[in-house]
Amino acid sequence: MTEEKYFIGVDLGGTNIKAVAMNREGKIFHQQNIPTESEKGPLPVIDKLVLLIESVRRKKDVTRRSLGAIGVAVAGAVDMKQGICRFLTNFPTKWKGIPLASRIKERTGCTSFLINDVRAITLAEKTFGAGRKVKNLVCIALGTGIGGGIVIDGKLHFGSKGFAGEIGHQTISMDGPKCGCGNYGCFEALASGSNIASQAIRFIKQGRSTMIRDLVEGDLNRITPEVVAKAARQGDEVAREIWEKEACYVGIGIANLVVSLDPEMVIIGGGIAKAADLLFEGIKKELSRRVYVDPDVSRLKIVKSEFGDIAGAVGAATWAMMNVF
Amino acid sequence: MTEEKYFIGVDLGGTNIKAVAMNREGKIFHQQNIPTESEKGPLPVIDKLVLLIESVRRKKDVTRRSLGAIGVAVAGAVDMKQGICRFLTNFPTKWKGIPLASRIKERTGCTSFLINDVRAITLAEKTFGAGRKVKNLVCIALGTGIGGGIVIDGKLHFGSKGFAGEIGHQTISMDGPKCGCGNYGCFEALASGSNIASQAIRFIKQGRSTMIRDLVEGDLNRITPEVVAKAARQGDEVAREIWEKEACYVGIGIANLVVSLDPEMVIIGGGIAKAADLLFEGIKKELSRRVYVDPDVSRLKIVKSEFGDIAGAVGAATWAMMNVF
Repeated sequence: MTEEKYFIGVDLGGTNIKAVAMNREGKIFHQQNIPTESEKGPLPVIDKLVLLIESVRRKKDVTRRSLGAIGVAVAGAVDMKQGICRFLTNFPTKWKGIPLASRIKERTGCTSFLINDVRAITLAEKTFGAGRKVKNLVCIALGTGIGGGIVIDGKLHFGSKGFAGEIGHQTISMDGPKCGCGNYGCFEALASGSNIASQAIRFIKQGRSTMIRDLVEGDLNRITPEVVAKAARQGDEVAREIWEKEACYVGIGIANLVVSLDPEMVIIGGGIAKAADLLFEGIKKELSRRVYVDPDVSRLKIVKSEFGDIAGAVGAATWAMMNVF
Repeated sequence: MTEEKYFIGVDLGGTNIKAVAMNREGKIFHQQNIPTESEKGPLPVIDKLVLLIESVRRKKDVTRRSLGAIGVAVAGAVDMKQGICRFLTNFPTKWKGIPLASRIKERTGCTSFLINDVRAITLAEKTFGAGRKVKNLVCIALGTGIGGGIVIDGKLHFGSKGFAGEIGHQTISMDGPKCGCGNYGCFEALASGSNIASQAIRFIKQGRSTMIRDLVEGDLNRITPEVVAKAARQGDEVAREIWEKEACYVGIGIANLVVSLDPEMVIIGGGIAKAADLLFEGIKKELSRRVYVDPDVSRLKIVKSEFGDIAGAVGAATWAMMNVF
């Protein structure tokens, strides 16, 4: 009888590094997190990443099996074939061109495979999560930035150069605000998590009365999407207005993907997905307003990511698994 | 030796019905056009369509082979499985729900298959035209309306309900002008052929000096994209301004597909593609302005449809061929 293999998936984020150990059926044996401290630069972060991998590997329930491969999900552009981080979002510029896969191989003795974090989330949801029974779907990660993944005929679509799914940078308002990428009126420039906080600050500075100010004890730098969500759930008018607008923007971004790709399901992940209760109705309303090519668009399945915070790590493990099959 | 089969492809447009006879290698033996006269209603149009098919069939060079199947491309929504025209754009409303495939079978004795016209163009270009060596591409038909077709991993993507490719109805300007579909700020609402004429009329009414007025001898109803293109090629400033704006809108529409799908090639068809000389440079400029996720976007292959006016009919024949294989 051949020994059952397991896979380690690591999600290298700007704030935390998350790792899971998983078998081929998607059963998660173990999960562990550590802070990234990306300001220390690539070498210390790679050290931490390797320590996390070794720590997961040492766990008793895992070592009875043998490690098949390691997957690493990163927020940014990766060269998947060569295992190089081309550019990491929210990391110091020193991260350009780091051969992360070979570094991990040197240090752990195990082959590793890189993938963009949102493509990893999509893979996790498609293979073991909300989309496991669906052949055509779009996954959207709403967070500090906005990314996506597109599954066509059961297969994650990477595109000709590997960046397919960068849906946050579709233009939805051609003369709109400048985006971090350089373009104007990107979906991300209007609907990212940082926009929710900055809108709250703008309203407060305009003198609008809102409990958001009290929730952060007057310290506007502490305003986060979570705080604005808390206020909205307590009926705060300014907060509700911000979430309504957010639902409208997200609805437009989804509408554009629906008319182009006609998916069976849209999966929403990322930090902002935690405010699904404040968003989903507004998204559906906006879809009905914008998608005339599908008279039944109100019945489109829009669901939350099943893996939530660990979707990136689960997807990275899935990616490792797919590469050694 | 088995007899070589041939296929008839028909493109049922609002103005003309075009037909081609083609073999499995994409060799076109014969082509023929007649005016649609859609105002006469479905029955007379179906009569004409059947007469055209029979006329093509009678051609000496065709009848030595046997007819494999008939494909019909229509501008609008079709139920491909049931062979029903759900709704035809630019046709009287009486065309809703017409079981066109079974009508053709009754009258010609030959099985027929329906497909949306822009999906047909995409199929023609992918199989025998500009995209025959390309696995991931987007085809855009710029005409009175704007439609598209998406090829992923060598396969035309129809989507879960069959409307994938309706890229003309992606929102690029969320508070923009109303589109024929009901939405605001659609790519089509800003960049369709009818917009080119209406912009010219607007400029003339504003008192701007332009040779467009002379080219139509003062009859503004005669202004077409062709007339505006002619003026632009002769250096007319108003006309050049209109085409520059058009290139910018088309560039945004393409940019949105590039960031989402990362295609290897973009094929531009439809009547407006005849003004490629006035558009392509501006499109490339807009892509460089908007697509930051691909630093090499200036090298993206943007090409004209190879089949031009008969792309829809060739694609319909290709569709018929694919269905009887």
